[in-house]
Amino acid sequence: MGNKDFKEQLKNVEQFKITKDTDIKALFESLKNTGFNAKRLALACEIYKQMIEDKECVKFFGLAGALVPAGMQGIIYDYIKEGFIDILVSTGANLTHDLAEALGYHHLQGDIELNDIDDVELRAEEMNRIYDVYMPNKVYEGIEDFVSKLSIPDYEMSVSSFLRFLGQQIPGERNSILRICAEKDIPIFCPAFTDSGLALQLGFHHQKMNLNHFKDMLEMVNIAWDAKSAGICIVGGGVPKNFIMQSLQFCPNSATYAIQITMDRPEPGGLSGATLREAMSWGKVNENAKYSTVIADATIALPLIFWYLKKIY
Amino acid sequence: MGNKDFKEQLKNVEQFKITKDTDIKALFESLKNTGFNAKRLALACEIYKQMIEDKECVKFFGLAGALVPAGMQGIIYDYIKEGFIDILVSTGANLTHDLAEALGYHHLQGDIELNDIDDVELRAEEMNRIYDVYMPNKVYEGIEDFVSKLSIPDYEMSVSSFLRFLGQQIPGERNSILRICAEKDIPIFCPAFTDSGLALQLGFHHQKMNLNHFKDMLEMVNIAWDAKSAGICIVGGGVPKNFIMQSLQFCPNSATYAIQITMDRPEPGGLSGATLREAMSWGKVNENAKYSTVIADATIALPLIFWYLKKIY
Amino acid sequence: MGNKDFKEQLKNVEQFKITKDTDIKALFESLKNTGFNAKRLALACEIYKQMIEDKECVKFFGLAGALVPAGMQGIIYDYIKEGFIDILVSTGANLTHDLAEALGYHHLQGDIELNDIDDVELRAEEMNRIYDVYMPNKVYEGIEDFVSKLSIPDYEMSVSSFLRFLGQQIPGERNSILRICAEKDIPIFCPAFTDSGLALQLGFHHQKMNLNHFKDMLEMVNIAWDAKSAGICIVGGGVPKNFIMQSLQFCPNSATYAIQITMDRPEPGGLSGATLREAMSWGKVNENAKYSTVIADATIALPLIFWYLKKIY
Amino acid sequence: MGNKDFKEQLKNVEQFKITKDTDIKALFESLKNTGFNAKRLALACEIYKQMIEDKECVKFFGLAGALVPAGMQGIIYDYIKEGFIDILVSTGANLTHDLAEALGYHHLQGDIELNDIDDVELRAEEMNRIYDVYMPNKVYEGIEDFVSKLSIPDYEMSVSSFLRFLGQQIPGERNSILRICAEKDIPIFCPAFTDSGLALQLGFHHQKMNLNHFKDMLEMVNIAWDAKSAGICIVGGGVPKNFIMQSLQFCPNSATYAIQITMDRPEPGGLSGATLREAMSWGKVNENAKYSTVIADATIALPLIFWYLKKIY
Repeated sequence: MGNKDFKEQLKNVEQFKITKDTDIKALFESLKNTGFNAKRLALACEIYKQMIEDKECVKFFGLAGALVPAGMQGIIYDYIKEGFIDILVSTGANLTHDLAEALGYHHLQGDIELNDIDDVELRAEEMNRIYDVYMPNKVYEGIEDFVSKLSIPDYEMSVSSFLRFLGQQIPGERNSILRICAEKDIPIFCPAFTDSGLALQLGFHHQKMNLNHFKDMLEMVNIAWDAKSAGICIVGGGVPKNFIMQSLQFCPNSATYAIQITMDRPEPGGLSGATLREAMSWGKVNENAKYSTVIADATIALPLIFWYLKKIY
Repeated sequence: MGNKDFKEQLKNVEQFKITKDTDIKALFESLKNTGFNAKRLALACEIYKQMIEDKECVKFFGLAGALVPAGMQGIIYDYIKEGFIDILVSTGANLTHDLAEALGYHHLQGDIELNDIDDVELRAEEMNRIYDVYMPNKVYEGIEDFVSKLSIPDYEMSVSSFLRFLGQQIPGERNSILRICAEKDIPIFCPAFTDSGLALQLGFHHQKMNLNHFKDMLEMVNIAWDAKSAGICIVGGGVPKNFIMQSLQFCPNSATYAIQITMDRPEPGGLSGATLREAMSWGKVNENAKYSTVIADATIALPLIFWYLKKIY
Repeated sequence: MGNKDFKEQLKNVEQFKITKDTDIKALFESLKNTGFNAKRLALACEIYKQMIEDKECVKFFGLAGALVPAGMQGIIYDYIKEGFIDILVSTGANLTHDLAEALGYHHLQGDIELNDIDDVELRAEEMNRIYDVYMPNKVYEGIEDFVSKLSIPDYEMSVSSFLRFLGQQIPGERNSILRICAEKDIPIFCPAFTDSGLALQLGFHHQKMNLNHFKDMLEMVNIAWDAKSAGICIVGGGVPKNFIMQSLQFCPNSATYAIQITMDRPEPGGLSGATLREAMSWGKVNENAKYSTVIADATIALPLIFWYLKKIY
Repeated sequence: MGNKDFKEQLKNVEQFKITKDTDIKALFESLKNTGFNAKRLALACEIYKQMIEDKECVKFFGLAGALVPAGMQGIIYDYIKEGFIDILVSTGANLTHDLAEALGYHHLQGDIELNDIDDVELRAEEMNRIYDVYMPNKVYEGIEDFVSKLSIPDYEMSVSSFLRFLGQQIPGERNSILRICAEKDIPIFCPAFTDSGLALQLGFHHQKMNLNHFKDMLEMVNIAWDAKSAGICIVGGGVPKNFIMQSLQFCPNSATYAIQITMDRPEPGGLSGATLREAMSWGKVNENAKYSTVIADATIALPLIFWYLKKIY
């Protein structure tokens, strides 16, 4: 136990000020010397910066939660475009919603607290609710139309190969996570792909679909194995978190940079809320890693971190 | 808006008593007339009872969170044995840990708050931490040994077919979710199967593994489509929740009984914390459904609901 | 650091069973050997039992959250009646609602998720909402009538003296926390008394009211100072938690038994969610204390702990 | 029910971009058209702006949570200095810590996740922990010294009068919430004052202290009653939230602007997590109010809102 060393490392909390001219870089440099989640968010910014500056670092990004419906598609797109993500692991839902936006459809916003929303009537009006965001059923029809016309070259490729193919088919006028990943050769892994509206439409219209999920799993392990340095940014937990973690677990170099943005908590024992410190016992995060868990809604934290990074680079 | 009807339905809150002779049935009958999560847990008991009594009801059970490590294997085993689950949708992790216990290995418990746990030293001692539960690395070796010796009859079967095959290979001395499901012909769906230690071992030792995930997806949709009545019990959210929900979404009969046990909340927009009411806008839960979300650790709620059901039947 | 000792103390997680004949004592004896919050709730039961069996232990009970409206009045009444509480520290709200029930009024229950509740219309119908519990405005009128007629002997007594006086005025037909405390000479401290509907009515009708809050503060410190052994059960955090903690902080004997039931989390830094371990750094909880924080809705945890204790005694 | 109106009000979610030149005003104008808590934080900024621009609006600010220890003293100081707060309702703890900083003491910061912190050893080294912030015991000695030397003119004044007196005694070199409030004639209400380290020291050294809490309560009701327009910003819930709410409940003008920043949730029924919509049923928040609850750590939200306001004014 090192309380003595610990005491020496203690610094004064900074009672900082914000002025009209404060910029995002100055803000986080101040917040780094405060406490609670403000400090952790500031640390997350610093760690992400270090990941980017470590030229050997493979940056894994786990994406769970309805971020595209909530307006974060452009931000995630830019994380990829700027080279801040090397490997994307996503839920199927975010890819489904990305495709919807890329095809010109929109998610809609309304105030959940207005008390004049009845989910039963929304059903009658073919409007699907995601907290305070809404998706009309006709979006599904647009996805279905697009998906049904795909000429799929190989029904047994890996999921990530299919997602690259899919990205290449997306017309170029709008932002698309799928397309920018295809263009920049960033692999997208989606271990629970069949748990998505996109996969359902594929399965209904292309009955021979049999994407090879084990190929993805082994490819991901190989990428992790070959990484001379590894960094992870986990948004929201879920399958993307575990998939990144399990790939790093038995590797020569586990994560030396680790960021986690979540509203989940450790006490009920689920992986989504597990601390990054716990991940050290498994060898998923390195014992010398720099790490920060930010308890925050990703819709607040992700844009702020990006803004900080963008200010610097 | 029906506040008038609403006022008529209001009943007195019951300021109940507990005596030495209270039983679990009486407790929940009292709690049903209270408020907050006690009431919701009591409603969950009642709804599960109604699911069981509706002989046409297909009971879907979604299992996420580290419940087997936390000592809930025997309880889940008994939900299945008693016929309280017809279709199980699970994370890969719970199946991996089920296999470990079935092979005679044990998870270990210790007090997380004791402050003498250092995850870095745990790593050195090959002890993996799941909050206050611990799994020695040698358990992996046992699973690896078992998995490597499997004679897999077909590398391209569906995941659920493979899990049935796997259940049949498990020796019979101990409780096993995999084995009891195989014995009772209860399908286990695991949409993110490759996101698990079990799948990793399979992939390493059986390089031809290419389980057909799309077959599972379509089979699940068919089961949901054919259900004359549907009930769902969602533990912890995640992929199992969404996979059950997406299968019911376009069916003639969406869920008319719905229970959800989770610590997640709706405000950050993720599916795990989404209300069952929201699911009505999607047509996943029927507008006339009886439903209850219990904000509780499943390790507390699941045994209590089982105890209630067991008392009755 | 004691990981070596730690490893030796690890025990197998128990994969327990529940039968028709399980009783609450057997249930918690099993859950004590599991993980996550089930284990912690079982530990809380055991620690409460130890508090009771330590005849020198002064049992402090902090009560925050709308427990009386939610139907927990009878349970709290019985904790007091059975001698499980020596010093009660409460929010003013629970005392206000206790008085309402004691005067024959009722809180009402209805389902919040039914979506036919409009708070604006509730306002028009003079119905105040507390999540899924409702209190009609006329309850206030009853409290006002009762309070306005009180002959208060001394406007400058301490809050706890006043609450004892008040308990003595309450007619005896119904359960009342205020009355049973007065009868059993259990002091009730309420540091934020003026933050309650009861105090508002007192202030409006008895303009000379000037209860001496500092007297309570010093009396509480004296009680804590004199305790040969101290145990605490904190429900929901807030002012009651801090008031108990600050009284124990500078005492010869800080708490050696400590239970906390809350849904709050430590990361945002507020006292309500702070760990009991953190309280050791302040000297509020003894370094050798037995302690357990249960992340659970108190409406679930409080009746279960009481049932366990009642089964034993 | 107005789903039809509701559909008309729906707007597209904005998939916005951040550039090097984005400013805080532009950021929140974009986030206002997204979803989840990002949107709600943007709405909170807008509502605060409207409160400021409504010249008749009395701006009530409820402060709970360890914000001064976490480095937010300077920010809160500036909210007051800029005229963004008219009435401050605070926990005693924030005032105690404000006094500590004002007297030249510092809170210290260290990383909670480093696993080399043992609360028992911290105790031995007289270092009190507040999550990842630390306060040495000697700070108490400094407060004690200051408090013991105070010449208190009237032991029976109201708490707010005493806090004004106290603010006037604080030397002027450093930021102090107490002093700036005294200088600007902003009343500070502290209904649970005796639940604080500051009050303990006062009680120990000034045995005649008998501050009149009922006078504060009635004064606060009068302020609320006289307000031609009322706005509230609630940070963290607790007693400050309820005290503001109860004062507005029976007034001609309840709050027409309402902001709430909290990590608490409504489902366990406590007031801290209760929705602002629920407050409408009580008449605490006006049915026509603009309101926003942000589920966020206040250490992140408070500086961002201030930055937004500072950019504009």
